[in-house]
Amino acid sequence: MSGYRFYQRASRTFHDHPSLSKLALLCTVSGGGLLTLSDARPFHGAYADAIHTDQKKKRVVVLGTGWAGTSFLKNLKDSSYEVQVVSPRNYFAFTPLLPSVTNGTVEARSVVEPIRSIVRKKPFDVQLREAECLKIDAVNKKVYCRSTQDTNLGGEVEFTVDYDYLVIAMGARSNTFNTPGVEENCHFLKEVEDAQRIRRTIIDCFERATLPTISEEERKRILHFVVVGGGPTGVEFAAELHDFVIDDLAKLYPTVKDHVKITLLEAADHILNMFDKRITAFAEEKFQRDGIDLKTGSMVVKVTDKAISTKERATGENRSIPYGMIVWSTGIGTRPVIMDFMKQIGQTNRRVLATDEWLRVEGHDGIYALGDCATINQRKIMEDIMAIFGKADKNQSGTLTLADFNDVIKDICERYPQVEIYLKKKQLKNFVDILKNYQGNDQKEIIDIELFKAALSEVDAQMKSLPATAQVAAQQGAYLANCFNHMEECEKNPEGPLRFRGSGHHRFRPFRYKHLGQFAPLGGEQTAAQLPGDWVSIANKSAGAQGRWWYLTGEDGLFLEETRVESEATADT
Amino acid sequence: MSGYRFYQRASRTFHDHPSLSKLALLCTVSGGGLLTLSDARPFHGAYADAIHTDQKKKRVVVLGTGWAGTSFLKNLKDSSYEVQVVSPRNYFAFTPLLPSVTNGTVEARSVVEPIRSIVRKKPFDVQLREAECLKIDAVNKKVYCRSTQDTNLGGEVEFTVDYDYLVIAMGARSNTFNTPGVEENCHFLKEVEDAQRIRRTIIDCFERATLPTISEEERKRILHFVVVGGGPTGVEFAAELHDFVIDDLAKLYPTVKDHVKITLLEAADHILNMFDKRITAFAEEKFQRDGIDLKTGSMVVKVTDKAISTKERATGENRSIPYGMIVWSTGIGTRPVIMDFMKQIGQTNRRVLATDEWLRVEGHDGIYALGDCATINQRKIMEDIMAIFGKADKNQSGTLTLADFNDVIKDICERYPQVEIYLKKKQLKNFVDILKNYQGNDQKEIIDIELFKAALSEVDAQMKSLPATAQVAAQQGAYLANCFNHMEECEKNPEGPLRFRGSGHHRFRPFRYKHLGQFAPLGGEQTAAQLPGDWVSIANKSAGAQGRWWYLTGEDGLFLEETRVESEATADT
Repeated sequence: MSGYRFYQRASRTFHDHPSLSKLALLCTVSGGGLLTLSDARPFHGAYADAIHTDQKKKRVVVLGTGWAGTSFLKNLKDSSYEVQVVSPRNYFAFTPLLPSVTNGTVEARSVVEPIRSIVRKKPFDVQLREAECLKIDAVNKKVYCRSTQDTNLGGEVEFTVDYDYLVIAMGARSNTFNTPGVEENCHFLKEVEDAQRIRRTIIDCFERATLPTISEEERKRILHFVVVGGGPTGVEFAAELHDFVIDDLAKLYPTVKDHVKITLLEAADHILNMFDKRITAFAEEKFQRDGIDLKTGSMVVKVTDKAISTKERATGENRSIPYGMIVWSTGIGTRPVIMDFMKQIGQTNRRVLATDEWLRVEGHDGIYALGDCATINQRKIMEDIMAIFGKADKNQSGTLTLADFNDVIKDICERYPQVEIYLKKKQLKNFVDILKNYQGNDQKEIIDIELFKAALSEVDAQMKSLPATAQVAAQQGAYLANCFNHMEECEKNPEGPLRFRGSGHHRFRPFRYKHLGQFAPLGGEQTAAQLPGDWVSIANKSAGAQGRWWYLTGEDGLFLEETRVESEATADT
Repeated sequence: MSGYRFYQRASRTFHDHPSLSKLALLCTVSGGGLLTLSDARPFHGAYADAIHTDQKKKRVVVLGTGWAGTSFLKNLKDSSYEVQVVSPRNYFAFTPLLPSVTNGTVEARSVVEPIRSIVRKKPFDVQLREAECLKIDAVNKKVYCRSTQDTNLGGEVEFTVDYDYLVIAMGARSNTFNTPGVEENCHFLKEVEDAQRIRRTIIDCFERATLPTISEEERKRILHFVVVGGGPTGVEFAAELHDFVIDDLAKLYPTVKDHVKITLLEAADHILNMFDKRITAFAEEKFQRDGIDLKTGSMVVKVTDKAISTKERATGENRSIPYGMIVWSTGIGTRPVIMDFMKQIGQTNRRVLATDEWLRVEGHDGIYALGDCATINQRKIMEDIMAIFGKADKNQSGTLTLADFNDVIKDICERYPQVEIYLKKKQLKNFVDILKNYQGNDQKEIIDIELFKAALSEVDAQMKSLPATAQVAAQQGAYLANCFNHMEECEKNPEGPLRFRGSGHHRFRPFRYKHLGQFAPLGGEQTAAQLPGDWVSIANKSAGAQGRWWYLTGEDGLFLEETRVESEATADT
């Protein structure tokens, strides 16, 4: 009577969380298509009146409800704003669990949280618009939007939203590298709906394979599952897929189980190559044991409805591999609306929207960008070397003593985080040590600009872009909200470092990413700030274990620990 | 941190039920469209060989995996069959909970059970074909099928399945009474996907209504939810909808909550008119308290994309009511494939496929039909009156004494269940009492055929069709499986009543429905046989109660009790 136990469980869940269980709302993202903006109407109607009566309140418009946007909303506390959120999804999705949704380990509704329930108790007015952002007009401080509800409610609704501050947190799209046929024939794994679709397709493949008139060859094709991309998502998905099709489905479809095959294609020489080698080795060995066919050095050049064409990097050989389902997971690309905005503001040579260290889009004071759609353009210390030297050289002597630096060291380190990374790498204690270390045994007390330049010449090489992870986005959202919360206060008493090229201090401290290097045990009490960054879980149920192994990386992608998380005992097992 | 608690919960559910949670498989039912059968291929390939090697085994083909088909599969135990199941859904759905799925009280995956896991441990070979049945060919004992998987797996697959016994349990479709615009614009509530779609549409309506450019009038239209049909499904859905939109969504969409309206349209004078008047009165009062606009005597004549047209039965007045979403629930109609089959076998004047009391399609020995697609054509006692009299009149005297009936009373009552209903209604003890009662004070010991006819003339008027409920279908499935389990045994030692028009005994006892008049408390230990039949739940959370009231009917639709089911305490609340 498992059906009834299940039913019972559901009802309990409901009674435990009446609001949440009812409100795991999945909206349908509109199909897309090109838009004519000519008939976009100005923002008007009852809402406009209601919202704009209090003209003193600054209008904050947040684009997107992913990790960055939601974290911003969660942390924004100042009641002097009125906030409008524009997002095609009215919920936040806990994306690291998407691979587990594909095989039913985790239910879709368990990984979503309605934005409206997040913002319900805010001390300020929040309006959520379930709509797509079509265009940002930085000149007129306007965002053009289109509703994403079913069109049978009466056609598309287009509207504009005015802002004083704009927070761009729209994330990224899957990168197809313009490979022909990928858009049409592959599944991606970015949205909750993607995960549900993948799961349904896997089942469809098995159902199809058991039909009586299917040939052996066709059966083999249908049950060949291909994952493209050996990054964390692709690897984790391949592991989950293995558990699903080999451990679970094979039992229900015993007659076709011998035809099932999983292939992982990776263009580089190894999977998980952004992490420590031990993680790579572990994952590759695990896949070999599981019978997952790992093909490295294999570039996908074309996908048709039934076959995937690859070119082997080593031999130049072309192959055509018949498949039943492909999941494409080769990293992220820029959304067209962001591209368009970048063109508008002259960021034409970049792949992602660039901001300064305060997450501000350069040259556009009221516009902030964070999460996967943005990257921080960290100021090079060498660009400002004269200004820094000048600030330290208070008496304009043209030379400095080491003691002269004492006043500005903290500011330099805060303004240029690469300094700290450099110190760590060189195992130096503080900034002055850089100068001492450079001079070796031949130390001088008097530093001139040339010596100063030479000593710092390698520091900028330590600059690294932040990874496009949930952890980075969440921290950026929290950081920015905190700035907004103290906007007026910091206007009067700036808390940021010295302005080396200007006068006074920066209003805020620049954003600083802290790689937490932790993992989230299932069922543990976690706060958003403690979320794992680049973790990789390799499901290990095939060994008969109830728990699963989680592999996670510390700062700099180092292999930290190997932990087994047991499933918790619950009252009704 | 409700999101994380949720996530935690999901993982627990998973660990409790690793197989079930992964296997709540929802398949996509194919879009339909007309079919050319000319290219249907004969049943062939590897499977055909594997299945037909053992020619001694009788091939049972089951069409459908609803209440009737699943109950048949669950109860079939005899290993001398080989079974093929053809169904567009690879799961069984607990349909009475569909209204609760629309508002998220119960999760979709909690009301489904994969057929493959139900049949996995059967002592005989079961093949499940996820396919639609297109045509039944009773002459050649063949069923024509078409696969229902996504077409990107390589086009539609058509195949045929041969049977020795055919069990038709395909259920019914929603009855639109050919009202224009219903198919295109209304939601039905028969499948799990329907429930999910309804939920998504409700949310879409709220999201749409909060968009800035929507006019007040349009906002009112979008938030007007209409339920057509005041039967158990429509009433229960309206009650659940009320809880959802008034108790839950209004909190999340506070700015539009005053525009929300629910209307229930019923063509008759009262809702729930098949039940006891007290149930009707309770539900109508409850709806009035809740502000659900109940319009009885209102017939829907047309539906367009934004308005529903009604004609008031009393006044003849026509109305056009703007709406945002309609759920159509006015009872069941016959599926085209069943219609086609009925035409084929000459049942042209009927609305549903007729069977005899053993669930056999008349004139087609190997074909059985049960559940919502069939109705039992109960033999009238007056049709057989001469034969019954003749069987009792062993010495062919032309007259009978009351004592002569003793040998055949049991068989008469078993063969003609209307006798028992008549006895109950007249408060008589046994069959002989019918004859005594008819004669009144002027009782004779000698009964001739004319007296016999006259005494029984009112008995057939008691015949009633069984309701199209889950309980009936489940009992029929179990009954038929039991017949199949004892086929050989009963061939030798028939267990059925005397054949009045033939010789010997019927092989099996005829199907007899037992209205259980019970209800299923949430979380209780239930078996399929104890499931409630015509129960009606009126959600009563608006009174601040955590539990809900379940109203249910006993035999003959009597109001039995009013019970409040408290939510259970769980370890982690």
